[in-house]
Amino acid sequence: MNDPALPGFAQVLAAAARIAPHAHVTPVLRSRTLDELAGAQLFFKCENLQRAGAFKFRGACNAVWSLPAEEAARGVVTHSSGNHGAALALAARTRGVDAHVVVPRGAVPAKLAAIAAYGATLHECEPTMAAREAMAEAVRARTGARLVHPFTDPLVIAGQGTAALELLSQSGGLDVLLTPVGGGGLIGGSAIAVAGRGAVTRVVGAEPAGASEAHDSLARGERITVHPADTVCDGLRGTIGEINFALLRRYQVEVITVADADTLVAMRLLWQRLKLLVEPSSAIVLAALLQQRERFAGQRVGLLLSGGNVDLDAMLGG
Amino acid sequence: MNDPALPGFAQVLAAAARIAPHAHVTPVLRSRTLDELAGAQLFFKCENLQRAGAFKFRGACNAVWSLPAEEAARGVVTHSSGNHGAALALAARTRGVDAHVVVPRGAVPAKLAAIAAYGATLHECEPTMAAREAMAEAVRARTGARLVHPFTDPLVIAGQGTAALELLSQSGGLDVLLTPVGGGGLIGGSAIAVAGRGAVTRVVGAEPAGASEAHDSLARGERITVHPADTVCDGLRGTIGEINFALLRRYQVEVITVADADTLVAMRLLWQRLKLLVEPSSAIVLAALLQQRERFAGQRVGLLLSGGNVDLDAMLGG
Repeated sequence: MNDPALPGFAQVLAAAARIAPHAHVTPVLRSRTLDELAGAQLFFKCENLQRAGAFKFRGACNAVWSLPAEEAARGVVTHSSGNHGAALALAARTRGVDAHVVVPRGAVPAKLAAIAAYGATLHECEPTMAAREAMAEAVRARTGARLVHPFTDPLVIAGQGTAALELLSQSGGLDVLLTPVGGGGLIGGSAIAVAGRGAVTRVVGAEPAGASEAHDSLARGERITVHPADTVCDGLRGTIGEINFALLRRYQVEVITVADADTLVAMRLLWQRLKLLVEPSSAIVLAALLQQRERFAGQRVGLLLSGGNVDLDAMLGG
Repeated sequence: MNDPALPGFAQVLAAAARIAPHAHVTPVLRSRTLDELAGAQLFFKCENLQRAGAFKFRGACNAVWSLPAEEAARGVVTHSSGNHGAALALAARTRGVDAHVVVPRGAVPAKLAAIAAYGATLHECEPTMAAREAMAEAVRARTGARLVHPFTDPLVIAGQGTAALELLSQSGGLDVLLTPVGGGGLIGGSAIAVAGRGAVTRVVGAEPAGASEAHDSLARGERITVHPADTVCDGLRGTIGEINFALLRRYQVEVITVADADTLVAMRLLWQRLKLLVEPSSAIVLAALLQQRERFAGQRVGLLLSGGNVDLDAMLGG
């Protein structure tokens, strides 16, 4: 079970200490109405209230502050459809270094505006993983910036695990922790944190039915690398990373697939009941819970609300 | 300065103890981006995350749990365009007694649905204060229920003051506390709490320009009781109460008027930056601050976000 290439609990604990001066300890909210609806005790970890509006700041901040000073001085670069780009831009700003963000054409305008507002340089490319990686590599070669991958970087994974660490303490213990699954950085880090704490908690992922490569990879026993993405969950379109897939298998994480229609119903419930602006990629965890209500009945369930970067202009009119 | 008819600090402290088993201690959020925009240190007290979605639960809960058992058994009645009705309905449910809520025709549908969901009996009337009071009196006479006025009841005012009490502790001290002004229950209770704590904090009210009777009453030196209301802030259309006006004068509270257009800009800022669903009646405090940016520059400012009961059906489509 010991693979030295995979980040472990020590890295998550180190990340927690490293990001503490910069990241928020986000609140955990309860709702009696949603508890009644679910027939369970729900603990909502509000990473939509994290700096830059998503848990992604944890991993980006851990990566930026792990760099030796001379390497950090050359800046950081990444490719991201949104939240990770904003997170890295802000993390770089906390250390006073440059950030370059490669963004696929068609990304949510509100997210691009946030990245630019944090002072990063934007580089637009075609909306394919190959084009994203190629342009990030070109920027890296030109500037000497350190590449901080949105979900396969071990420092990023360790940083994302700090949210689950906090939630375990804040909730007083959980039977289940539900997190969204995109590239697998959050669920990978969460699985490490939960196992490291020695918690009985089962980690369960929620993935859009229209971008279900983590679920399908686990079912097949090997990682699927080419997968069409058709989902409103714009934060969950990435393909599961190799290291991330290895973490899912090591920690025997289960992944549930969720239809977009159910996710949108859950999003509205969260807006109405928790008074929180969460994006579809967050609401998917509540949708997964409600889809399998009997199974989770009576349990203490943590739900990781990953982000709140909704495109209000599209929703309410510019 | 001692008027025995006005609630004082002892009543606010008693309310805090009485409602503690039922009400949330709501979080205080910060935003570096909004701090930069305002040029001040902002502390947002999230009463939109209070039970039933608004600070109103505090006052209603204090009133319901202050009643002797035999009086409580006959139930409670009120008239309310929304948040107070929901709050009283939920407060009555926490004690297992009946609630009757008189609602003006034209109130926000989402708010009426919430009142009904908490188990109260709805009674619809004409949208005038006279019609509301007449119907509430008729229900009271028929059922023996105790009338709990939304903002003139001293128990309600004392309960509302507990939010400011919490914020003073949570923030570590404030130069200014900004609260919305409708009937004057929240600002009245806040002024009592701030004075009782011996805080240097100035209490400043924000009132819609289209429903500015508190501002105008203070300017004239006597209470205006007939005033047209034309504002999107549906929680702030009530006319300032007599006891509330007396509290504003006693504590020398200032009231700033705000145009609806500025309030809507502030609402969107809060949605985008704090990831919080707040209603216009809450956002008005940020609008007031931004309207007088120079004046508040460099100060520690508490902003009481009073509620989050937005009509999502109207905004996003049913």
